[in-house]
Amino acid sequence: MSAPKKVVLAYSGGLDTSIILKWLQAEYGCEVVTFTADLGQGEELEPARKKAELLGIKPENIFIEDVREEFVRDFVFPMFRANAVYEGLYLLGTSIARPLISKRLVEIAEATGADAVAHGATGKGNDQVRFELSAYALNPDIKVIAPWREWDLTSRTKLLEFAEAHQIPIAKDKRGEAPFSVDANLLHTSSEGKVLEDPAVEAPDFVYQRTVNPEDAPDTPEYIEIGYEKGDPVTLNGEALSPAAMLTALNEYGRTHGIGRLDLVEGRFVGMKSRGIYETPGGTIMLEAHRGIESITLDRGAAHLKDELMPRYAELIYNGFWYSPEREMLQAAIDKSQEHVEGTVRLKLYKGSVQTVGRWSDKSLYSEQHVTFEDDAGAYDQKDAAGFIKINALRLRLLADRNRRGS
Amino acid sequence: MSAPKKVVLAYSGGLDTSIILKWLQAEYGCEVVTFTADLGQGEELEPARKKAELLGIKPENIFIEDVREEFVRDFVFPMFRANAVYEGLYLLGTSIARPLISKRLVEIAEATGADAVAHGATGKGNDQVRFELSAYALNPDIKVIAPWREWDLTSRTKLLEFAEAHQIPIAKDKRGEAPFSVDANLLHTSSEGKVLEDPAVEAPDFVYQRTVNPEDAPDTPEYIEIGYEKGDPVTLNGEALSPAAMLTALNEYGRTHGIGRLDLVEGRFVGMKSRGIYETPGGTIMLEAHRGIESITLDRGAAHLKDELMPRYAELIYNGFWYSPEREMLQAAIDKSQEHVEGTVRLKLYKGSVQTVGRWSDKSLYSEQHVTFEDDAGAYDQKDAAGFIKINALRLRLLADRNRRGS
Amino acid sequence: MSAPKKVVLAYSGGLDTSIILKWLQAEYGCEVVTFTADLGQGEELEPARKKAELLGIKPENIFIEDVREEFVRDFVFPMFRANAVYEGLYLLGTSIARPLISKRLVEIAEATGADAVAHGATGKGNDQVRFELSAYALNPDIKVIAPWREWDLTSRTKLLEFAEAHQIPIAKDKRGEAPFSVDANLLHTSSEGKVLEDPAVEAPDFVYQRTVNPEDAPDTPEYIEIGYEKGDPVTLNGEALSPAAMLTALNEYGRTHGIGRLDLVEGRFVGMKSRGIYETPGGTIMLEAHRGIESITLDRGAAHLKDELMPRYAELIYNGFWYSPEREMLQAAIDKSQEHVEGTVRLKLYKGSVQTVGRWSDKSLYSEQHVTFEDDAGAYDQKDAAGFIKINALRLRLLADRNRRGS
Amino acid sequence: MSAPKKVVLAYSGGLDTSIILKWLQAEYGCEVVTFTADLGQGEELEPARKKAELLGIKPENIFIEDVREEFVRDFVFPMFRANAVYEGLYLLGTSIARPLISKRLVEIAEATGADAVAHGATGKGNDQVRFELSAYALNPDIKVIAPWREWDLTSRTKLLEFAEAHQIPIAKDKRGEAPFSVDANLLHTSSEGKVLEDPAVEAPDFVYQRTVNPEDAPDTPEYIEIGYEKGDPVTLNGEALSPAAMLTALNEYGRTHGIGRLDLVEGRFVGMKSRGIYETPGGTIMLEAHRGIESITLDRGAAHLKDELMPRYAELIYNGFWYSPEREMLQAAIDKSQEHVEGTVRLKLYKGSVQTVGRWSDKSLYSEQHVTFEDDAGAYDQKDAAGFIKINALRLRLLADRNRRGS
Repeated sequence: MSAPKKVVLAYSGGLDTSIILKWLQAEYGCEVVTFTADLGQGEELEPARKKAELLGIKPENIFIEDVREEFVRDFVFPMFRANAVYEGLYLLGTSIARPLISKRLVEIAEATGADAVAHGATGKGNDQVRFELSAYALNPDIKVIAPWREWDLTSRTKLLEFAEAHQIPIAKDKRGEAPFSVDANLLHTSSEGKVLEDPAVEAPDFVYQRTVNPEDAPDTPEYIEIGYEKGDPVTLNGEALSPAAMLTALNEYGRTHGIGRLDLVEGRFVGMKSRGIYETPGGTIMLEAHRGIESITLDRGAAHLKDELMPRYAELIYNGFWYSPEREMLQAAIDKSQEHVEGTVRLKLYKGSVQTVGRWSDKSLYSEQHVTFEDDAGAYDQKDAAGFIKINALRLRLLADRNRRGS
Repeated sequence: MSAPKKVVLAYSGGLDTSIILKWLQAEYGCEVVTFTADLGQGEELEPARKKAELLGIKPENIFIEDVREEFVRDFVFPMFRANAVYEGLYLLGTSIARPLISKRLVEIAEATGADAVAHGATGKGNDQVRFELSAYALNPDIKVIAPWREWDLTSRTKLLEFAEAHQIPIAKDKRGEAPFSVDANLLHTSSEGKVLEDPAVEAPDFVYQRTVNPEDAPDTPEYIEIGYEKGDPVTLNGEALSPAAMLTALNEYGRTHGIGRLDLVEGRFVGMKSRGIYETPGGTIMLEAHRGIESITLDRGAAHLKDELMPRYAELIYNGFWYSPEREMLQAAIDKSQEHVEGTVRLKLYKGSVQTVGRWSDKSLYSEQHVTFEDDAGAYDQKDAAGFIKINALRLRLLADRNRRGS
Repeated sequence: MSAPKKVVLAYSGGLDTSIILKWLQAEYGCEVVTFTADLGQGEELEPARKKAELLGIKPENIFIEDVREEFVRDFVFPMFRANAVYEGLYLLGTSIARPLISKRLVEIAEATGADAVAHGATGKGNDQVRFELSAYALNPDIKVIAPWREWDLTSRTKLLEFAEAHQIPIAKDKRGEAPFSVDANLLHTSSEGKVLEDPAVEAPDFVYQRTVNPEDAPDTPEYIEIGYEKGDPVTLNGEALSPAAMLTALNEYGRTHGIGRLDLVEGRFVGMKSRGIYETPGGTIMLEAHRGIESITLDRGAAHLKDELMPRYAELIYNGFWYSPEREMLQAAIDKSQEHVEGTVRLKLYKGSVQTVGRWSDKSLYSEQHVTFEDDAGAYDQKDAAGFIKINALRLRLLADRNRRGS
Repeated sequence: MSAPKKVVLAYSGGLDTSIILKWLQAEYGCEVVTFTADLGQGEELEPARKKAELLGIKPENIFIEDVREEFVRDFVFPMFRANAVYEGLYLLGTSIARPLISKRLVEIAEATGADAVAHGATGKGNDQVRFELSAYALNPDIKVIAPWREWDLTSRTKLLEFAEAHQIPIAKDKRGEAPFSVDANLLHTSSEGKVLEDPAVEAPDFVYQRTVNPEDAPDTPEYIEIGYEKGDPVTLNGEALSPAAMLTALNEYGRTHGIGRLDLVEGRFVGMKSRGIYETPGGTIMLEAHRGIESITLDRGAAHLKDELMPRYAELIYNGFWYSPEREMLQAAIDKSQEHVEGTVRLKLYKGSVQTVGRWSDKSLYSEQHVTFEDDAGAYDQKDAAGFIKINALRLRLLADRNRRGS
């Protein structure tokens, strides 16, 4: 790879990406463009602008954007249509944010004439893969720089020395090492590393940042109602909300009731297992609610096919293949199934759990007339079931007969 | 189908199956053999013997058996190895009991020279299918009688008249109709029908029989540790327990903490949707614990394949195909994956939820050395990741290049 | 089911459906509407009109339509985009025609105010299922009449007596029974039953009607070129052809070279196995050609996902679930994959076989630069492969290490 | 990676691996052990011994083995039980040989105290992946050396210079470059590269080495009968044959009749597409025969599940994951299905094609009594089909009703 001339850096304004910024300039003598996105991580963006300016980035090279609506509308919601969970439990909060960041990096590169993008993910994790696969899928000629895989700043001491040598301001509380590492966006907060590295030991309570401890949550349940259209939540307790506003509001309910905590050991795409603490308050509510509305509006055939496709779909997102033809194929199938997924779900929130307790829809497939224990007025002829069973049993009877004969 | 000469009836001792017993005698003039199983439903069996004798069944034709160990060991545990859930949520508590009952019905038929079996399931549900597919798969020549699909006792009044006409004792509280219908065994209790038929309305609290209301559960969490071998739970808090004893003990923990309640609308195999209230206290704990122990002992490749196969496996059990070659194929694959699934999971139980908070194993695949944020002493070369990503990206880059060119 | 008042009958003009026509009138006293479709079965349709008139059908109740273009465009081509084969070999020629016939029956019923449709399929086969599921999916209130399952004309003698009694003309060669049963349309001809019922015995040559015996085919190979757009064949040897014209032309090539014969034992949806002789000359060529054009234009990820989905898709069509949400979901995924499937395939036809010998496309993903044994000018860095392998191997090494330790 | 001390080299005796042998000695100063396997590639092995001796390998370090029986019994046959084809067409002839070679390399390394293995596969292909994943899965600490990825002998000229400098004899016909590259074993011969690199151009006839041109094959068909047990072929025309003898004999039939030629563009695991010419004469016959015997002995449920699992299974083998838990899980499922796959298949071989024309078995599931057009003596009640269809249609009718209402 020839040296990059101009690099768009995913820049948080924090110490690590500030070091990367300076390192890129020092290592390659290249121009640096910064991209700082508000994905709902809960941090002010303007300090990042100040910091970038301080580090010598030209104002026209500083991109600061609120992408929360796009994030929820075009990434989170499509994923939730699939009821996607990775390894049975993880709601993919980090995974789903990476493609959007890469998309903007590539677009800004094209807009500013940059030939490279750079990110601050390490060489041991999944995020490097997600950033880079997305970037390459969107621009096959882009250069991708992952300083953590390249430089020799392999210890905290060396990093701080580099920072000092390059006049990067170091907040007092960054002198020591954080007791664990955090990633956050509107969908979730993940924590991993350091004090969490022994999976036998319960995560200390101070790790959780996004939800109250269920034991401290209100002693009385709260009920909410979510309205759906085409598989996406559109109203909350009757009020229409934009995608980002919806997720923000559900996060608040989830936080209050201690919903969406997960302590997981997962298999990374790069081959090792890692332990993470995830908090996905609003997302956990959305998953339950979406299953609830699907339960009355989605046909069994469609629902079961979705369930079979889901693990693959979740794996693709986890592994960084959002921009792949196979993810798009699965999305086409999933979206096709959501045409009539509309109606309302009533949920009970209480001390860490969320449960569907009611659901109704103009598009409901539930037929009280068919299922009733009472007289069904001829809607269903029980004698049909005898034939249904007999024909389904035929191959099993032929088998049993063969196996008996065979021995 | 020619008339049966001798019928083995799945007999609970209750009013409905007592009516069936008499109806079989009256309708076919056939000899009736009763089979009453203790599956952990929490009822005494001896009254069923008395009742059968009272209804004229010969002592040698009364079979009363405690099958709890077989039920858990040969049906529940194999199913939990798969992390089986139907439509994302249902733990298949009713479905998994049916094949065992059919197996014993067929075996008793063969032992007693009976040519038919009979069950008390209605023509609208899944249970008729499960009973009958299992019976036919085990004996292709057996006759199966499903009185609810055949007789004209189509109202409560007619049933009671028939009972009175045949001197069947009617308990006072059976004069009126139950407000909902219940099925129970060691794994779960399900409730459906009548007051539960409107899926928009929250289930009344009196429906729940197996678990305390989470709001009434203890205000402090409780921790337990479950030890696994080959994918099955074998110790609880360090004490070795038989399969049935394990599930019984976990049920007690679950009951106390209000764990395992589910309000679900599901798609029946016979085509309509129905609403059920399920309580699976111990099973809910087992599912979480099994995922927990798999998370450190099961390779990602095996784990993901299992996740992809699971919905099909669950569907087969739900639909009654336990004794089918495809379920056996899937079981062979699943069991193969469990060879090293051993170790201990620590769980926190609190007001309706159960969460893994720690897990450890001599067979752990989790490598702190590989995953650590600290110096890993060369266990992992971050530069390898660059090649890994480049090669994974190649096809995406060729695609992007083609698509750009193509337009 | 209440008696039908007006029935739309799938009418071929042959003896059997003429008997059905009269039986419907006699049994139900209902008005009969006939629908005769040209699906490319190679028979004149006008005699069917004459026959219907002779049997007393009013002219406005006789529907005769050439649906060949619709058949190929909306049913055959979408199915071939999936490379659908049932049980590894069968190209679904009969299965794919049924939904179209049902669709027109239902539409004609709605147009003529009929409350029922009727078909001539027997109670042992798959076709009854396909006709009826399609009809119910398109009109949930339609009545479906399947005379073969209902009447008592259970022998050849009784059928002929009924025909004579109702003045149905009987062609001389229909007095005796046919040595096997045939179904044909533009995609294929199937033969089954009678002389074919012993699967151990080779099918006699006179069974084949649609293809020359490969031994009698030309001694020199012939080459053709098929051009594709969005996964569908659109040109043959450079000439643009409509869907039906394309299939007709390919059938002629296939017939000449003895291509597309298949002797198969298959598992029917109704549970038993049956033996069929299928001739699918043009379809066999299309399958090979489609795989050929996909091989250079479809990404590996999309191609492999398609291969995994295909058996389910084929099963759905075979079982009669064309009009089901899950088939539509799969179709959405498949169609999504075909956006860039265009270009040309060169095929060699010779004595029963068809093979791709060349393929090219403006949308090709094949990169000689990447794959070459020669100098690739840096397109591919072989060192990347080392990292790719190392990371892919990591979990396997952790496993091997664990298993070694474990024992 | 520290320098290897003793390396086991997969050694063919040819020029390339002889250069590798010397390069390993020169580069690492390490001891070299050679392993030369007879996989049925059709070359004498003793010259490889001579050559190794000539190049200075100690006699005790020269391993020459006939592994044909193990290859067919433990690798080819298990794979054929799955009807494995990659991308619809490729019978995986090269892929399936690699794990066996790696297994012996690792075993010999352990027996001789070597700390590394080496192979002659290039950095652009799949074989490097297959060799190395297998080696790492069997010994997580083994070093793997892939000289083609490491050295600077990047042109034919440099290779020949190196050979001359190290006194490696160069056969006259190796001075020039081969017009394409070949891999062969008892299952297949593959040819790729150079003259084959343009996928638009038909492969020249001289590429084919293993089969006669169909046009030159006998003008009369030949029939053979293959007997199966537990899914493996065990007799040919009534004669019991060992696995390798079976495949050898079928290869001869296939060669004679021009069977098993394939011209394919495939998606490599390393990301690019490549074009290969494959000849798999015996394997092509075995695939058809296995499907033939399964067609009467395998239940539909098992058969369809196998078909759905197959693409994944084939992909795993293609990608080099033979020794992975997921391949072993799938194998367990597949092998479970084969317990009753026994009987005989009759095949017709003619000018490039092989077709099943008859099959019979004591374990047949085909029931003439059930399928017959004649009177079936009550084996099947056609009225059952009505109920079967009605129940299957119920969800589609509820859907149609909902969709009508919905709009």
